[in-house]
Amino acid sequence: MSFETGNNIHLSIFGQSHSKAIGAVIDGLPAGIGIDMERIKRFMARRAPGESGFSTARKESDIPIILSGIVNGRTCGSPLAVMIENRGFDSSEYEDLRSTPRPMHADYPAWVKYKGFNDSAGGGHFSGRLTAPLCFAGAVCIQLLERASVSIGAHIASIGDIKDDLFDPADVDEELLKDLSRKSFPVINDEAGEKMKDRIRLMKERSDSVGGVAECCILGVPAGIGGTMFGGLESSFAKILFAIPAVKGVEFGAGFGASGMIGSEHNDSYYYDESGKVKTRTNNHGGILGGLSTGMPILMKAAFKPVPSIGIVQESIDLSEKKNIEMKIRGRHDPSILPRALPCVEAAAAIALYDHMAAEIG
Amino acid sequence: MSFETGNNIHLSIFGQSHSKAIGAVIDGLPAGIGIDMERIKRFMARRAPGESGFSTARKESDIPIILSGIVNGRTCGSPLAVMIENRGFDSSEYEDLRSTPRPMHADYPAWVKYKGFNDSAGGGHFSGRLTAPLCFAGAVCIQLLERASVSIGAHIASIGDIKDDLFDPADVDEELLKDLSRKSFPVINDEAGEKMKDRIRLMKERSDSVGGVAECCILGVPAGIGGTMFGGLESSFAKILFAIPAVKGVEFGAGFGASGMIGSEHNDSYYYDESGKVKTRTNNHGGILGGLSTGMPILMKAAFKPVPSIGIVQESIDLSEKKNIEMKIRGRHDPSILPRALPCVEAAAAIALYDHMAAEIG
Amino acid sequence: MSFETGNNIHLSIFGQSHSKAIGAVIDGLPAGIGIDMERIKRFMARRAPGESGFSTARKESDIPIILSGIVNGRTCGSPLAVMIENRGFDSSEYEDLRSTPRPMHADYPAWVKYKGFNDSAGGGHFSGRLTAPLCFAGAVCIQLLERASVSIGAHIASIGDIKDDLFDPADVDEELLKDLSRKSFPVINDEAGEKMKDRIRLMKERSDSVGGVAECCILGVPAGIGGTMFGGLESSFAKILFAIPAVKGVEFGAGFGASGMIGSEHNDSYYYDESGKVKTRTNNHGGILGGLSTGMPILMKAAFKPVPSIGIVQESIDLSEKKNIEMKIRGRHDPSILPRALPCVEAAAAIALYDHMAAEIG
Amino acid sequence: MSFETGNNIHLSIFGQSHSKAIGAVIDGLPAGIGIDMERIKRFMARRAPGESGFSTARKESDIPIILSGIVNGRTCGSPLAVMIENRGFDSSEYEDLRSTPRPMHADYPAWVKYKGFNDSAGGGHFSGRLTAPLCFAGAVCIQLLERASVSIGAHIASIGDIKDDLFDPADVDEELLKDLSRKSFPVINDEAGEKMKDRIRLMKERSDSVGGVAECCILGVPAGIGGTMFGGLESSFAKILFAIPAVKGVEFGAGFGASGMIGSEHNDSYYYDESGKVKTRTNNHGGILGGLSTGMPILMKAAFKPVPSIGIVQESIDLSEKKNIEMKIRGRHDPSILPRALPCVEAAAAIALYDHMAAEIG
Repeated sequence: MSFETGNNIHLSIFGQSHSKAIGAVIDGLPAGIGIDMERIKRFMARRAPGESGFSTARKESDIPIILSGIVNGRTCGSPLAVMIENRGFDSSEYEDLRSTPRPMHADYPAWVKYKGFNDSAGGGHFSGRLTAPLCFAGAVCIQLLERASVSIGAHIASIGDIKDDLFDPADVDEELLKDLSRKSFPVINDEAGEKMKDRIRLMKERSDSVGGVAECCILGVPAGIGGTMFGGLESSFAKILFAIPAVKGVEFGAGFGASGMIGSEHNDSYYYDESGKVKTRTNNHGGILGGLSTGMPILMKAAFKPVPSIGIVQESIDLSEKKNIEMKIRGRHDPSILPRALPCVEAAAAIALYDHMAAEIG
Repeated sequence: MSFETGNNIHLSIFGQSHSKAIGAVIDGLPAGIGIDMERIKRFMARRAPGESGFSTARKESDIPIILSGIVNGRTCGSPLAVMIENRGFDSSEYEDLRSTPRPMHADYPAWVKYKGFNDSAGGGHFSGRLTAPLCFAGAVCIQLLERASVSIGAHIASIGDIKDDLFDPADVDEELLKDLSRKSFPVINDEAGEKMKDRIRLMKERSDSVGGVAECCILGVPAGIGGTMFGGLESSFAKILFAIPAVKGVEFGAGFGASGMIGSEHNDSYYYDESGKVKTRTNNHGGILGGLSTGMPILMKAAFKPVPSIGIVQESIDLSEKKNIEMKIRGRHDPSILPRALPCVEAAAAIALYDHMAAEIG
Repeated sequence: MSFETGNNIHLSIFGQSHSKAIGAVIDGLPAGIGIDMERIKRFMARRAPGESGFSTARKESDIPIILSGIVNGRTCGSPLAVMIENRGFDSSEYEDLRSTPRPMHADYPAWVKYKGFNDSAGGGHFSGRLTAPLCFAGAVCIQLLERASVSIGAHIASIGDIKDDLFDPADVDEELLKDLSRKSFPVINDEAGEKMKDRIRLMKERSDSVGGVAECCILGVPAGIGGTMFGGLESSFAKILFAIPAVKGVEFGAGFGASGMIGSEHNDSYYYDESGKVKTRTNNHGGILGGLSTGMPILMKAAFKPVPSIGIVQESIDLSEKKNIEMKIRGRHDPSILPRALPCVEAAAAIALYDHMAAEIG
Repeated sequence: MSFETGNNIHLSIFGQSHSKAIGAVIDGLPAGIGIDMERIKRFMARRAPGESGFSTARKESDIPIILSGIVNGRTCGSPLAVMIENRGFDSSEYEDLRSTPRPMHADYPAWVKYKGFNDSAGGGHFSGRLTAPLCFAGAVCIQLLERASVSIGAHIASIGDIKDDLFDPADVDEELLKDLSRKSFPVINDEAGEKMKDRIRLMKERSDSVGGVAECCILGVPAGIGGTMFGGLESSFAKILFAIPAVKGVEFGAGFGASGMIGSEHNDSYYYDESGKVKTRTNNHGGILGGLSTGMPILMKAAFKPVPSIGIVQESIDLSEKKNIEMKIRGRHDPSILPRALPCVEAAAAIALYDHMAAEIG
């Protein structure tokens, strides 16, 4: 199924950009767990638009309304259902887009698959807005994972060709993850961050957009978590990460860089540290071998394409008149999705990981 | 579940490197489809070791034995079960590896997860040998996809820092895919191919190994195939690709390269070609938007890490004595897995795609 | 997962008796299908309480609010999410039930499973109220099935020891199903119906309750629908039927009666009727053989236990004080659930069947 | 999927009556569990034909061959794959049955569903022979359940109209289950058993068959095991029980009998016994409320139709010539399946239950 994922927990997401509401149902959570709604709202606010000068000005009120599953602040064992009402949109501005697919959006293949009956307003169920319930679910999983001392953080690893420092693979600090979570523009190297912001502002001026990479780190996962083959951690993370609109590449540890290395430099050596814990001296494997966690930091990167909605005349087609046309997308859009994408990446990672750790934690 | 995948078909893989047999069960195939077993064997032979100087000399006899599901050469609607007997191995040589995990293999996290009861011989169920039933299943799906005029091909895009030409994203030729399938060392640029072979030979001399990238192309997929969110084509492809041992990165279309681009250069423009078919002038999107096929060639790359088994002394640990050790892995191993990895990538792509197209084809 | 079912469509139900809302998410519906909301509401009204003198007087307003998945009255390919707000309840009256489990309710095992954190108000997620979203989903499936000329109907086959006539297995009439759907107390034999009503009134006077059997018939299913083994029609129907609270038995065709027969009387003979259609002269098999439909009417019965909430002093326990107690359940409850159970049975049958026929219909 | 079941473990069954082999793959078993193969063989022998005068004389050699998943007698965490080779059959005798469906078998709907390509020999994948891998899987689960002190037993509750005593619902003895497992014709009341045998012999003489009921009891399940709605214990048991060929009805506790009762007699009262354990004075609920175990004995019954293969001339049709015919089934068949059905019922119960208890046990 398309809108569902998970084995030990089951997440079902629903909604379109302009439907009455979007939301999620999470089945399989343990009962009796206190859920901090304020923290969830703060997490979701990181994804919400209009929080800074670097994202679209459209006003969305991402207030999660709990429909079921929580009683007196605690999970009760029945599915946790949440909805976020859609407001303040004007569907009419999309009406004329129905037969003129926006380049690099899902409009055209959706029109084919759903025989023209898909909800084209605001991107319908292909809208980035569907990441709001994903972030809700992720925020819940993050709180559950913390019970097992697992922490997750992400930063903007690059905007266009401007690169931030990367996490030190074998020695990421939990303090760094916390610092990043407090930043409005989460980068490790603030100087690089300023250049990134300049680049984003430049794109905004030009009504253009720019891609980027998010790097995510998970600390505190004990060795032996995960599965094998199709059930491996990398398969699980990748499946959910690719559900985030605009993600076009996913890698773990040295990733594509590993393909350029030789074995004797790539192999990470095991050793017992002073406390008797098994570690590897380097961490090219990114904390995962054979689909299982090794106890080292889990490191992954997701590549985001430039936001396809740009304010520049583009070639496209008219599906009803079957002819080539030129079009210009109206409205204001994010010149870079990266700042808002970070919580989505963290949420995806948390959902995939909690699904594997549910038995340990629940 | 770990060894299972699929929604419309269901693939269940079983076996360990040194178990009596490895195999697969495929449920959900349509009845009455003729299966060409000889073609399947030829496909599987591409994955089998010892076929050329570029892979390990271990003699494996990958003869698929049909247990059920085929009657008189045709599928009968009941699950297609196949086994491949394991022969000619000597488990004893792995016995002393039980408590001394090989660097960059799954030995250590598997030892933790399975409390020491995992089958450590030959890598157990983490062995690359499990890709033999994957290739069988993929070969079946390839034949089914051909009924819808879909064709799949792959080449070695790089070995270490030596790069082959890439597929022309917007204009790959089916003839090229056929040519590649006939080559013993499938590259587009044979000159680059010779350099790659030299590099592999060099690695062999040095008892070292080298990573690489496989690029895979699928032609003939009509627009509108796939799903959304977690059920999108990219999620499906990635989930299975990451089940192939040594894959550490997956990207579609411009992939990580897209993260360095700006929207106005990255966006692919739609147009009607002379025959009235919808196409895009460029194909940075790799044939997939919003999890759905666009009708353009589907392009993906998988990054393989260097084979971890190298004949060089490495640091590791002794889990029973809890001390640091040095170890040297015996036996002969592939200095590069890429030549044998290509059919695995094609198989993974075929399984994921057929699962989405089953209703159209079956 | 507990609250989810289906292979080709996926139904996820959420809510507790006293949560903000209950609801359902249906993923996998085809796009472009007109949904008649008024008919859905009428179907759901049959399940709603207080519709006649034979059910509890509690006022429930089962108004389904579409959250997503329908645009301009038609499905749009994204999950159909619906919620029904819970109103007019007073949770406080259940508070003292938390540690004193009502006999024959799920209170006690739920208290154990959820460590006391389950939502005990109104039965929480074990409440019969959860059948409201089930009926919504069933009503949608019934409309979809009608596109393939499939019709479903049910009647009260017995109340206590008072029996209605049964459907003529080999020759049920579609007209009869229509007649039944129009009756406020759906029985074939109205004389038996009057006796049943008397019995129910008697039970109400005595603050007691009585069990009964629902018989359901499906017409128009072509031969060859369904699956085998665990995917057979009987497995599918039974799995959902047993999700309806109070169902303790399910049978198909001659059912338990078949166990008392000999083969030569039980076997149904095939023949070609005048129109060339394959039929069986009798229909002890209830329209299903080997998990597959035969083209004959599909017939099933579900046995309902007496409503456990009775206004008579009963023995129970106090879980916090660990002592035996006597208790009397307050409030007014249905003396027989059968009238309201019929649409639930029809809904369950429709969901299970549509899941098998989705490819044919969608 | 048809041949697959389970959430925490995943069972995939394959094979046809006359394929090279039948078998099963069980994914998700814990590693390190010793498996007693001799006990499994003895369990499977109870299902095998020709063990007594009361079943078909066809010689089947149900020797389970472990393909993977067990190393040195212990599970290793990879899927447990088993095959049972099919031998000593003569498919030719079924060839002429291809277009003349046997009454009350799946031949006709299978011919429709699989467009004539199904394996008709010996019933193909609809054959009762597929219960051999089911019994294997069940026998494994029984051994796993014993680790949690759960025991399972069944007896022939009726043959035609001859009834055995039933289990005492509130007070079944583990000793009784053991006694039954040792009997070649497992009944509680041996006098009734003798009458049953006479009835079966009579049916054999007449080349006819007779139905019956199996009653199954599970002891030692703690309270709170199971799930809710579609994931309830009754749904799980029923789904697998209806996968056993010939099962046409399933009930729990008082079952259909409950439908004839009033609440005040049907309701089971809770009390603390001397040891402080929560019990119910009666056990009409059959150990399950709201899909969850209550700690009382779990009791279920499965109704089996008479074996459809009888040696008497029957009416049928010729599908290729589209005409009515008369046919007589050749060969010798079981006059009653009940003796061989008992281990199948126990296996189904064990698989369904272990799937719910895996987290507790594994």
